[in-house]
Amino acid sequence: MTIRRDDAVRMDRDDPLARFRARFRLPDGVIYLDGNSLGPLLHTVRDRLDKVRDAEWGEALIRAWNAHHWFDLPKTVGDKIAALIGGGSGNVVAADTTSVNLFKMLSAALQLRPGRPVILSDNGNFPTDLYIAEGVAGAAGSDRRLQIVAPEEVAGAIADEVAVVMLTEIDYRSGRRHDMGEITARAHEAGALMLWDLSHSAGALPVDLLGADADFAVGCGYKYLNGGPGAPAFLFVHPRHQDKIRPPLSGWWGHEAPFAFDTDYRPADGIARQLCGTQPILSLAALDTALDLWSELDITDLREKSIRLSELFIAAVDGFAGEFGLTLASPRDPDARGSQVSWRHADGYAVMQALIGRGVIGDFRAPDIIRFGFAPLYIRYVDAWDAAAALNEVLATKAHLNPEYRRRAAVT
Amino acid sequence: MTIRRDDAVRMDRDDPLARFRARFRLPDGVIYLDGNSLGPLLHTVRDRLDKVRDAEWGEALIRAWNAHHWFDLPKTVGDKIAALIGGGSGNVVAADTTSVNLFKMLSAALQLRPGRPVILSDNGNFPTDLYIAEGVAGAAGSDRRLQIVAPEEVAGAIADEVAVVMLTEIDYRSGRRHDMGEITARAHEAGALMLWDLSHSAGALPVDLLGADADFAVGCGYKYLNGGPGAPAFLFVHPRHQDKIRPPLSGWWGHEAPFAFDTDYRPADGIARQLCGTQPILSLAALDTALDLWSELDITDLREKSIRLSELFIAAVDGFAGEFGLTLASPRDPDARGSQVSWRHADGYAVMQALIGRGVIGDFRAPDIIRFGFAPLYIRYVDAWDAAAALNEVLATKAHLNPEYRRRAAVT
Repeated sequence: MTIRRDDAVRMDRDDPLARFRARFRLPDGVIYLDGNSLGPLLHTVRDRLDKVRDAEWGEALIRAWNAHHWFDLPKTVGDKIAALIGGGSGNVVAADTTSVNLFKMLSAALQLRPGRPVILSDNGNFPTDLYIAEGVAGAAGSDRRLQIVAPEEVAGAIADEVAVVMLTEIDYRSGRRHDMGEITARAHEAGALMLWDLSHSAGALPVDLLGADADFAVGCGYKYLNGGPGAPAFLFVHPRHQDKIRPPLSGWWGHEAPFAFDTDYRPADGIARQLCGTQPILSLAALDTALDLWSELDITDLREKSIRLSELFIAAVDGFAGEFGLTLASPRDPDARGSQVSWRHADGYAVMQALIGRGVIGDFRAPDIIRFGFAPLYIRYVDAWDAAAALNEVLATKAHLNPEYRRRAAVT
Repeated sequence: MTIRRDDAVRMDRDDPLARFRARFRLPDGVIYLDGNSLGPLLHTVRDRLDKVRDAEWGEALIRAWNAHHWFDLPKTVGDKIAALIGGGSGNVVAADTTSVNLFKMLSAALQLRPGRPVILSDNGNFPTDLYIAEGVAGAAGSDRRLQIVAPEEVAGAIADEVAVVMLTEIDYRSGRRHDMGEITARAHEAGALMLWDLSHSAGALPVDLLGADADFAVGCGYKYLNGGPGAPAFLFVHPRHQDKIRPPLSGWWGHEAPFAFDTDYRPADGIARQLCGTQPILSLAALDTALDLWSELDITDLREKSIRLSELFIAAVDGFAGEFGLTLASPRDPDARGSQVSWRHADGYAVMQALIGRGVIGDFRAPDIIRFGFAPLYIRYVDAWDAAAALNEVLATKAHLNPEYRRRAAVT
């Protein structure tokens, strides 16, 4: 490879973020490049789970809802996320799943733009975003429809009939990045609203929702935010819209006075009306603690390391990619990319299985993409170098032709 | 009191369910009569949470989705709950919140009865059920409406225009029980569908959804099922309807092939299409393990103990109720009651605070109800006796007039 391992070692020695790696419980013998799918366990999260289980649930029981501020967690956690994505305090809650939150936000957008029938998205969006939009548009008696175009055609497709443009900033397969400011401005020029899915952005790169003047956003708690498997998701509503929305998922946690037990629904003021039912406290507490680390660092430093990690990895793989049929699926320009690097390979599934067999954990996305996430909090430059070397070794030795690596799991 | 404590001690000695109490981690000095709001921590659940956190998330990371069967948990847990409520294997999933599941089931019912505009419910229903029904009925352009009658008027109000009757079997305040078989039959006679909320039934008394021919059900994982704070909820769809429903919350976990990452939504066969987004695995794993205990007992034995506990408590409190302005809010007939006993007292909030100050934890429901849940797995007959004695002592000494007990928490 064109870059020497010693160079990577030196880069780690000079890395101002290196101290964060020890905060995580990383398994031995593993290079974990799938934090964009499930972030690892922080030691502080481990301790918090002990506390919420034993001292709060176990000991305080029902009294913990007040005594340990469980009821406040959706807003407490929401505010911590808001600080990471430029959402502003009081404009974000953590609750439910990304899919359910997409439903809430799309329903809100359609309420606010009643004369416009189109939800516009792109074919690089994560499937659940498109499925939920189909569900929202397909309600009985609705004349709404979902229009899906190629990512580069979105700006040109924002016409008068578009109620809301729904995009994921970072493509889950390729890592391609949309220009949040530019597309939001274009949507507003056309009188449409803008909904961003930040699942692959939050904790991966700087986001400025209020600066971009976004209307709505959703995102995921279990990727770069390290909240644990299936951690609650989040949603953002710009303050100009919050009190104008009549939530279709009008549950008691979004009521003005949940404990008055009135029979009539009266939505709470502000972002709180976007809450619905009782949240999974164990999972939400894990996310709460996982977020504390972000106040110790500047996200622009994180972004800088993310770019250096992925540039190193691309440069290293470029040295043998052509020989083995690998082509870069991610943009070459780091500014046009998130914090992941993806390659296409005709035998991608087996190649990734062979890598996992060697302790290099990335993932595969059908039909032919192998995906490597570089979470700068715990990934070292030597990890990027070693991962490239392992990929070279797999392809050079044809390890992926081993039948063991070709058997597909029921779920991949 | 008319019953002696010795009698209660003897009843505990002869109790075939007594052995289950040691399975729970109950705080010292507490009589916990609020398991109908938040069930306590089982030792096995404590261990499972260690395992899912350290060995699964911490060690296997992303590989745990397959290796530790996380993807299967909604169905695995659903089948365990189905066994408790007569739902039949493959007809129940555990996911999301009771509120979100109510939205799914009401939307399904309205799809299946397109010409009928009314959701019928009663004013004893839990508020979130009514709020969600308002949300479903109030969608833009909808001619649907929610009709709320008194509990005893429900059967008579099931007219031709009713699409679905939505009831909670056990009233959350009074413990009053609806006749599931009778009302379901009446709904079907009128061509309507029947949706039961089992939040205060599952794990409290025998339920036979298929026997009653119910169409839909939802319920809660954190009350008598002991799944932990905000544990995922469940839903049941009768097999005759499962493949006819087009879920409005059409997320990727309900897709026929979630990992094909297709852009078109194609619902999975059967109950799986009622799944939507990624579930909170820590919370769902806790519920999964909490449910294992139920296979060791016969729920009719549990029901028998539940009735004996509440009859003992009522008899004991009856001895002083009149003197201190307490009136029974629950039905006198145990067959018409769930597993809780509620009393009205003009100063109910302060009375309950004074009891909690003495380690007897029940709860208060506005405006004047003090509520005592008898979860027979861990509540002893002496606990019921001691709770009655504590209530007598609070009222006789006017302890509830202490200003400390009169200050309302922001959330009660």
